[in-house]
This record gives sequence, C-alpha cells and structure tokens, in this order.
Amino acid sequence: MDLNAQWLVGFVDGEGCFHIGINQNKEMKLGVQVLPEFTVTQHQVDEQVLYGLKDYFGCGVVRKNHGKIKCYRVRGHQNLLTKIIPFFEKHQLKTKKRIDFVKFRRVVRLMEDGAHLESEGLERIREIKNQMNLKN
Amino acid sequence: MDLNAQWLVGFVDGEGCFHIGINQNKEMKLGVQVLPEFTVTQHQVDEQVLYGLKDYFGCGVVRKNHGKIKCYRVRGHQNLLTKIIPFFEKHQLKTKKRIDFVKFRRVVRLMEDGAHLESEGLERIREIKNQMNLKN
Repeated sequence: MDLNAQWLVGFVDGEGCFHIGINQNKEMKLGVQVLPEFTVTQHQVDEQVLYGLKDYFGCGVVRKNHGKIKCYRVRGHQNLLTKIIPFFEKHQLKTKKRIDFVKFRRVVRLMEDGAHLESEGLERIREIKNQMNLKN
Repeated sequence: MDLNAQWLVGFVDGEGCFHIGINQNKEMKLGVQVLPEFTVTQHQVDEQVLYGLKDYFGCGVVRKNHGKIKCYRVRGHQNLLTKIIPFFEKHQLKTKKRIDFVKFRRVVRLMEDGAHLESEGLERIREIKNQMNLKN
C-alpha cells in the first residue's frame, strides 16, 4: 500500500492517538513505568492500512485491540525520537491532536533526560499527561 | 485553514461517511424520499476543520450532530455530482470506504436517471444501500 505523507497526516488527525501510559511496575526505581506510545486504530476490515503505516514508518507493530478493532502501535524511544516525532514535526497535524503531539514530544524528551527516574520529573510528566487527550 | 487534497482523503478515510437515507415522505410519489449525503463528523473542539472542508468543496453545511459532535454535510445532487464525486474519483480513498463511495456514486447516478421515482429503481437503490457501511 503506497501511502502519501499528507494522506497519513489526515488519517492520523482522524484515527491516531499520542498517549502516555503510567503503569505500576515494582521493578522500576519509583515503582512506575512511563510508557509513551503512538497508536492508530482501525476496524479489522482495513488492517492493511495499519500495515501500510508500519511499512511507511519502518517501525511498530499491528495488534488486536479489542473485538474487531486492530491497532498500529509504536513504543520505544528510538523509534519515537527518530521516526514518529520528526515526521509530525515536518508534517503538521491540522486538528487539536497537534497540541497532544507537542505534549507527547515534551514527555519523550524529558524521558531522554531521565526525568521519569526522579520524583520531581515524574510529577512533571504526570501533569503533562493529565493535560493530554482532553476534548475541552 | 489551508487543506491539501491528500490530507483531506486521509481525514475522510478516518472520519467520513457516504450515506443513503431512505425516509418516509408522503409528498413523494412512492411515499419515500431518497437522500444521499456525504458527512464528516468531528468533536466540536475541531469544528474549524469542518469549516475548512466546507471552504475546500465550496458546498455543504456545518451542523451540530449530537452532544459535542459537529458534522459537515453535503446533500443536493448538483453538489454531489459536480464537487464531491469528482473529487473522490480523482483522489482515491485508501480504506474500504472507497467501496461505499462507489456504491454511493451508483445511487446518485441512478437518481439522476429518475430511478428512485419508480418501484423497481427504488428497490435497486434499497439493495445497494443495504450493502453499504457494513464492516464485514
């Protein structure tokens, strides 16, 4: 599937999500793991589009989400820092999702500096996360 | 808002719908009105995108759908035949929505020939409608 950058931006403006997971994890220093992820969900009839995204970005996985919904998902700092973030810096989102992208990028960069390994930095990440994906 | 054709196709692949309404209407010859419409829905925080679509196509209206959801909607044969349909013929959708678009176009063309004013034609339109917007 031959995808075009602008088509991809439009599709992500519709179906994409920049999400920061903060999960309990006793193995981590502060007892929590911070997990930034970029996802695009789609009904399984169009899963070939999700594989098209995977090919386009050269990273990520396609997984079952729930029921008949599939999900393209990118985790991992190097993929986010070198592939996903530069793409959306070059090709700006047109909906308010752009604001979530900017907050997402801020968290990924804070983590690059190790902020999630110290209480103060983790608190800052929580604050940013709480301001994301709000519709008001 | 400066929209690009490929962005728009990607966004419609995510958020758009080609729909054939068949509504009771005693004023019509067969007691029903066939109403094809192209819609794109979006949370109200991004209604400026819907106005961007309206500007781009030079037709249609932005209306409240339900709750905080807004809708860009195009009805009217001339708008569909001269603006919406030619756009998606030139710029192909990449999801299965393309199949719905082809069926939608078939109905609009059947109506152009007056098919909806005769029982047999109306039955054919019903059959096509029943095969649209299915996820299987």
